Amino acid sequence: MNIIEGGVTAPKGFKATGVACGIKKNNKKDLAIVCSDDTAVASGVFTTNVVKGHSLQVSMEHIKNGFARAIVINSGNANACVGESGYNDAKDMTKLAAELLNCEPEDILVNSTGVIGTKLNMPNIRSGIRSAVNSLSADGGSDAEEAIMTTDLVPKEIAVEIELQGEKVRIGGMAKGSGMIHPNMATMIGIITTDANISRSLLDKALKHCVRSTFNRISVDGDTSVCDSVFVLANGYADNDAIVKEDYEYSVFVDALMYVCTYLAKLIAKDGEGATKLIEVIVDGALDEDDAYKAVSAVAKSPLVKTAIFGEDANWGRIITAVGYSGATFDPNLTDIHLGNLLVCRNGCAVNFDENAAKEILKKKEILIRINLKRGNVSDRIWTCDFTYDYVKINGSYRS
Amino acid sequence: MNIIEGGVTAPKGFKATGVACGIKKNNKKDLAIVCSDDTAVASGVFTTNVVKGHSLQVSMEHIKNGFARAIVINSGNANACVGESGYNDAKDMTKLAAELLNCEPEDILVNSTGVIGTKLNMPNIRSGIRSAVNSLSADGGSDAEEAIMTTDLVPKEIAVEIELQGEKVRIGGMAKGSGMIHPNMATMIGIITTDANISRSLLDKALKHCVRSTFNRISVDGDTSVCDSVFVLANGYADNDAIVKEDYEYSVFVDALMYVCTYLAKLIAKDGEGATKLIEVIVDGALDEDDAYKAVSAVAKSPLVKTAIFGEDANWGRIITAVGYSGATFDPNLTDIHLGNLLVCRNGCAVNFDENAAKEILKKKEILIRINLKRGNVSDRIWTCDFTYDYVKINGSYRS
Repeated sequence: MNIIEGGVTAPKGFKATGVACGIKKNNKKDLAIVCSDDTAVASGVFTTNVVKGHSLQVSMEHIKNGFARAIVINSGNANACVGESGYNDAKDMTKLAAELLNCEPEDILVNSTGVIGTKLNMPNIRSGIRSAVNSLSADGGSDAEEAIMTTDLVPKEIAVEIELQGEKVRIGGMAKGSGMIHPNMATMIGIITTDANISRSLLDKALKHCVRSTFNRISVDGDTSVCDSVFVLANGYADNDAIVKEDYEYSVFVDALMYVCTYLAKLIAKDGEGATKLIEVIVDGALDEDDAYKAVSAVAKSPLVKTAIFGEDANWGRIITAVGYSGATFDPNLTDIHLGNLLVCRNGCAVNFDENAAKEILKKKEILIRINLKRGNVSDRIWTCDFTYDYVKINGSYRS
Repeated sequence: MNIIEGGVTAPKGFKATGVACGIKKNNKKDLAIVCSDDTAVASGVFTTNVVKGHSLQVSMEHIKNGFARAIVINSGNANACVGESGYNDAKDMTKLAAELLNCEPEDILVNSTGVIGTKLNMPNIRSGIRSAVNSLSADGGSDAEEAIMTTDLVPKEIAVEIELQGEKVRIGGMAKGSGMIHPNMATMIGIITTDANISRSLLDKALKHCVRSTFNRISVDGDTSVCDSVFVLANGYADNDAIVKEDYEYSVFVDALMYVCTYLAKLIAKDGEGATKLIEVIVDGALDEDDAYKAVSAVAKSPLVKTAIFGEDANWGRIITAVGYSGATFDPNLTDIHLGNLLVCRNGCAVNFDENAAKEILKKKEILIRINLKRGNVSDRIWTCDFTYDYVKINGSYRS
């Protein structure tokens, strides 16, 4: 597998663009379109939040047929909690894009990210869609990424190339992070494109498999499942024989998709609001998946753990305490905790560890916390970030 | 009901004290004893955390018989996660206190709060217990409170007087808050004394009833059930006829106990680490208790909501979003949200509210967030505090 340039436009037969249509201030890019030259098989994973943005609702309907031609995304306004007009506005976005791209509205997916409770400025959106369609380009991936960023500090895009039966197949991806001053829904978007020739059912299966352990395993604020929506479009422009069963080619494709999702998910956690460190929390030895997830998410959500890491404090007591209230079945007297490779707690008891060694580990930008419950053989993992002054600053500031 | 002076020593037949024995630095008071002149009926409520301090484990055994004479509490060291010696140290504390107070070790309750993973300095503890027993005083309530404080900024004590059958009955209480730099277990202690003459079973029932809606409804870091341990001792020194059934006298006693628990619980939330505002979150109209609790606790735990309140930002979108991921059954399109008395969201949609009015409400030191799910008639309530720079500062600092 090779890392290549081009983001979502790296795969053959995809174009993209990002334009400014006045939803964001200061003429910042705020509307993106990612478009396949022909209808592609498509799959999506959506937030489990009961509160769903109107644009998201429309996309959930449109993806049902399993095909899509293009995705329209605006930033600066989440198009959520504004009532029926929000749904109609999202529908109108798909109609206009379909008309300009000469396809069915059902083949257009739409996503809006930004403030909740404010209606979209539709004249701006319409002119934005028009100019976007006119500026679609085979190397527009970075422009599209720029247009979906909100308080993200770093752009998040990647592309890889693999070989299937000797044929080159590409997967490209971009994402915006859970870094919004505005409400933490519609805070994450992932767009993945591929020219692989793959059946819709296997594409769907591959995406859900990868999202579960990547986009659904990052936490910034404690709402662990930040997966608001992740879309994948596969247009089959590569010359590989269609992947129609879970064979070797499928596994190669899944590995590459997993790499793309992991890369983007870790970037989102690392770029969490105010974050200075990426924290990887791993729980091993759980009895079952439920226990592993409860334990790992309690630690990853704990403000006490996250502030201790910010302070480079080897305060493992907070880690075992979080596991203790997680609801996971475990025996504290069996539990081991490592910070990096340093054992700080054995069988639930303090270990006389070298504080300087701990300090060296905690000074790093990427911190690994490993908890072994020694009850079973199930593991889970979450990426999160430290909790800093800047988090409070960013999120305490006004909606303006 | 009258508010009176004296804290835990306000009720007849109780003495208390607080001394410094070198567990805390700078000769700060760090060991307290609250003692009844005779054996009292007793009840306790303990943390649900699977990880329990060794002292707590001993108290859970000793309270089983339903009687207690005294409670010994040290601050500065949680006596947790140090292995079997921690349990033996706690046992030794009860033996020494029993010997000096001339009672059975099983009549001594013990509680330790502070650092996890460090063994108690038993020579200091022993000398502390000796000097404490020698300095027990009928007006030592405030000294005892001072000795159990950790990073608490304000002492937390109260006493009330009621009349039962024309006889004066007193209830006194003290607490230490979830304000510790060290792990968030053993972060809350509540000690309640009363000279009421009441059966053990009704005392137990009254305590559990009151704790559920007070000490178990405050949140500082997100581990909502901060109830590490709350003890109540009733020595029957008042001359009321014994309360042996759920009659009018019982209800008067419960109301007074509820007042004491509510007062202390709100103080703990208000005095949460770095807090500048007390936030009361109320959910009405839930289908059942489970939904009401899920919704209210998700909002009270949300760092995005707590930072918005710190920033005095009427960001109600974060509130409905937290309800959305809480797991509660509800319909966003029915949900109303009030900040104070200002309606900011009706039926899940933005209301065009007056930002200045919102600002006036959010400038206050006590903020009320009311969410009406309009699905049923069940309510719940949690007190929490805002999330500030100082929270990060306090919790990012070293274990020293």
